[in-house]
Amino acid sequence: MTGAMQGRLPGTLYVIGTGPGSPDQMTPEAAKAVEASTEFFGYFPYIDRLSLRPDQVKVASDNREELNRAQAALQRAAAGVNVCVVSGGDPGVFAMAAAVCEAIDAGPPEWRCIDLVVVPGVTAMLAVAARIGAPLGHDFCAISLSDNLKPWSVIENRLRLVAEAGLVIALYNPISKARPWQLGTAFEILRAVVPAETPVIFGRAAGRPDERMLVMPLGEADAARADMATCVIIGSPQTRVIAREGRPDLVYTPRFLPAEAT
Amino acid sequence: MTGAMQGRLPGTLYVIGTGPGSPDQMTPEAAKAVEASTEFFGYFPYIDRLSLRPDQVKVASDNREELNRAQAALQRAAAGVNVCVVSGGDPGVFAMAAAVCEAIDAGPPEWRCIDLVVVPGVTAMLAVAARIGAPLGHDFCAISLSDNLKPWSVIENRLRLVAEAGLVIALYNPISKARPWQLGTAFEILRAVVPAETPVIFGRAAGRPDERMLVMPLGEADAARADMATCVIIGSPQTRVIAREGRPDLVYTPRFLPAEAT
Repeated sequence: MTGAMQGRLPGTLYVIGTGPGSPDQMTPEAAKAVEASTEFFGYFPYIDRLSLRPDQVKVASDNREELNRAQAALQRAAAGVNVCVVSGGDPGVFAMAAAVCEAIDAGPPEWRCIDLVVVPGVTAMLAVAARIGAPLGHDFCAISLSDNLKPWSVIENRLRLVAEAGLVIALYNPISKARPWQLGTAFEILRAVVPAETPVIFGRAAGRPDERMLVMPLGEADAARADMATCVIIGSPQTRVIAREGRPDLVYTPRFLPAEAT
Repeated sequence: MTGAMQGRLPGTLYVIGTGPGSPDQMTPEAAKAVEASTEFFGYFPYIDRLSLRPDQVKVASDNREELNRAQAALQRAAAGVNVCVVSGGDPGVFAMAAAVCEAIDAGPPEWRCIDLVVVPGVTAMLAVAARIGAPLGHDFCAISLSDNLKPWSVIENRLRLVAEAGLVIALYNPISKARPWQLGTAFEILRAVVPAETPVIFGRAAGRPDERMLVMPLGEADAARADMATCVIIGSPQTRVIAREGRPDLVYTPRFLPAEAT
């Protein structure tokens, strides 16, 4: 690759988020990065959200091969190509921006000369929150339930601590065929700390035609209601539900936490 | 107001986020909500980011009067006007969507019939993270340091617990003239738990012409480097800095947390 680079300026490597899925939720900044790029690296369903020109090339790969994909994209950018790495949601939240940084950190020095532009987007928890009201209106956290990426004991410990802290909890990667029991166990851990009536939101495919929003109390929360496209938000003890006739319930967390509630 | 409503259908109340500040970071969905609205409620600097038509009316108010502003907007929507409540960033993160829900919860029954549309946006921590690399690449939390909204003892407790949990921490509302010491105290609390070399990002006005990004180790983090427009991100013990010749450092948190790190 070094040979191929000689005398050639490195290209720009954009890392974009498409937002939750609706083209209306992708920023103009991301759209401009798409226009400026000629090769696209990413998971097929995300790249397929983009309307590409005939001269723009898709280089799809498996969703589990993020580091390889980042390396391939960096090689092409080092060779002078303007490259776009495509994530769903926001590229910085459990997505490709970290994979690209990991590849640069461990890669050849010339990768540090590449013009890296990370373009932020609307991440899933924000889209789900908007559709249901304002559950993230007070302090909150985002935790990935995937124990492919960290030991399960760490996840359990984090869930206990953030529940004790009174944060609203957004769970990414809640469930998959290979990880069927983790979400149910997470609910059990949280039930030991958080009141049973606390609302839990199952937000699936927010902003897309197959969107589905469900709200149920933590005491009855059923992990089987989630799939890979679901972001699960567990309220805090302050989170409230507003019933509305003929309209879906609103779920929100008030901005104020009075002293007597602590 | 009930009299004025008779025979009139309620309007739509949009709650939008303009994103961090650059018009390129506001979604088309938010732009369409702006087009569809005739009255705009919000803090002047946020409303002033929009290009309004002559028939569109700004109703500005003080940034500290969020509940009054939400009530005024709901009254106009109930009277049949299409109204837009404008936040910076994402409206669901420490912003107007929760204030609107609070007002509906405590307000007259007819406010529950209003068509409420919350439009998500790019919140500050995502914009700051994108400019610096991928510090939110692993589990993280967002905590408001404003003790106008909750007792300081709750904030201290939350900081200790999320630091023990190993989360990256994004601090909103880190400092103001009326709250000058809280950020420095927060750094002291975190220094007792998190290694001194952990990177701290002071991300000011991400995406705007007056943007300023600073990175320094937690041991040297100086609260005076933040102002009201700053989002402060404190890494986890896994967060890394990549030095690049002639380019700003990259800061990222790897996706993987190996068992031996715990």
